Amino acid sequence: MPRYALKIEYDGLPFAGWQAQAAHASVQGQIEAALARLDPGFAAGARIAAAGRTDAGVHAMGQVAHADLAADWEPFRLSQALNWHLKPDPIAITAAARVTEDFHARFSAVGRKYLFRLVARRAPVTHERGKVWQVLNPLDAEAMRAGAAHLIGKHDFTTFRSTMCQAASPVKSIDRIEITEIALPSGREYQFRLEARSFLHNQVRSIVGTLERVGAGSWHPDQVATALAARDRAACGPVCPPQGLYLMGAVYPEDPFDPARNAGGADQVFAD
Amino acid sequence: MPRYALKIEYDGLPFAGWQAQAAHASVQGQIEAALARLDPGFAAGARIAAAGRTDAGVHAMGQVAHADLAADWEPFRLSQALNWHLKPDPIAITAAARVTEDFHARFSAVGRKYLFRLVARRAPVTHERGKVWQVLNPLDAEAMRAGAAHLIGKHDFTTFRSTMCQAASPVKSIDRIEITEIALPSGREYQFRLEARSFLHNQVRSIVGTLERVGAGSWHPDQVATALAARDRAACGPVCPPQGLYLMGAVYPEDPFDPARNAGGADQVFAD
Repeated sequence: MPRYALKIEYDGLPFAGWQAQAAHASVQGQIEAALARLDPGFAAGARIAAAGRTDAGVHAMGQVAHADLAADWEPFRLSQALNWHLKPDPIAITAAARVTEDFHARFSAVGRKYLFRLVARRAPVTHERGKVWQVLNPLDAEAMRAGAAHLIGKHDFTTFRSTMCQAASPVKSIDRIEITEIALPSGREYQFRLEARSFLHNQVRSIVGTLERVGAGSWHPDQVATALAARDRAACGPVCPPQGLYLMGAVYPEDPFDPARNAGGADQVFAD
Repeated sequence: MPRYALKIEYDGLPFAGWQAQAAHASVQGQIEAALARLDPGFAAGARIAAAGRTDAGVHAMGQVAHADLAADWEPFRLSQALNWHLKPDPIAITAAARVTEDFHARFSAVGRKYLFRLVARRAPVTHERGKVWQVLNPLDAEAMRAGAAHLIGKHDFTTFRSTMCQAASPVKSIDRIEITEIALPSGREYQFRLEARSFLHNQVRSIVGTLERVGAGSWHPDQVATALAARDRAACGPVCPPQGLYLMGAVYPEDPFDPARNAGGADQVFAD
């Protein structure tokens, strides 16, 4: 059966997260329902696997999943057919590519990229409602960068993972935490870009929530190092809400959506 | 009676435009209803005037209106009280300032700034739904800039105004049309920034709709000059939809929201 990789964008607000659940609409469930309109295997209950199982309210611009289909689809036509059946959900297949059977969206991924958007201003947000976490006062970006520096590299992140986290080990290696400050027409936006091979459950939101305390002046940047060394969930700052978080992409040894590699990629004209 | 200038941000999607209407919710109507909770004059039917009367579906980041109130409000507290009463509408007062009685949000304005956001990609937009105009194929930004150059300066814009436009004269002076191209995670965005003392009804959407035809290769850039010279509505390209349009600001001889001028401005920390 031919295997396809799908690049997926979604607004997480209306969904109970990525993972299919019986009682609530999920991103995975909606995509599997669209696939069931095209493919007998999915009509009979086949499942897709994804690079990152995002929580309720978390968004994606570059989630990756793979699906095995009975028919030999031209990848761009497959993405268009899925987008048609996904209407009116705010889920879009932005690229599709034929991949080999050894490609697994989750297990082949060697990196994940997340963005967290935080807006500081007094007036309620309008255009970005459900898309950012809002705080009232401006933050000290330099102090947050100093705090974040303590988290780069390989550490035991017990402090920064959910008590519900099912990963076997709390040891992870964070490659990058970049913090950008942007002046908005009203207010300021702080964008946090994090990259690692993989993340623990709630790790990004625990880190950003802690760095916000540093930016607000409640924590000294060095307290981030103390909290990390404690290896104690109780030492973490407040976990920030999901609506500012975006899964931006997954990294594979060979990019399945690279137009140079795959002549049949969807939206190739617009590829990253 | 003390007069206040309000800077207003809104998502135009749920409203029948700025102007108050009996049968439909309008931005003006919602703000006047919030003012009526604070002020006896508005409870008795007083009205506000605005720099630009945006159409249904058009957004704002810097609309300006003025209101005469019975009480002497501290401007920041006024903005907070209005934002409280405006919930849950996607309308926010991002600044408030005390102004003199000769200030009129519409008649004192000597400039208006608009932004139009256009996204080109095949997959449906998700995060920016209702916030941009989507086309399927990438555009030639250089050709659009060449076409736009014909519109800069003082011209008879009969071709580029709605047949419903009530302005006495079709002669307007456009100071700036700047076109920026941005690579998105999936697709490309084209931002059009226009500035003029004032605009005719549907002028920005008529101009951007015409320039999109140039960017798509259907029109030669010089056809924009031919269309302008025709002074004929029928010579215009298609008028583009409202959801990509944002009123970004109004320009006054003296900025009422300049924190240096007005010690009591709301959100001064975040002022532009």
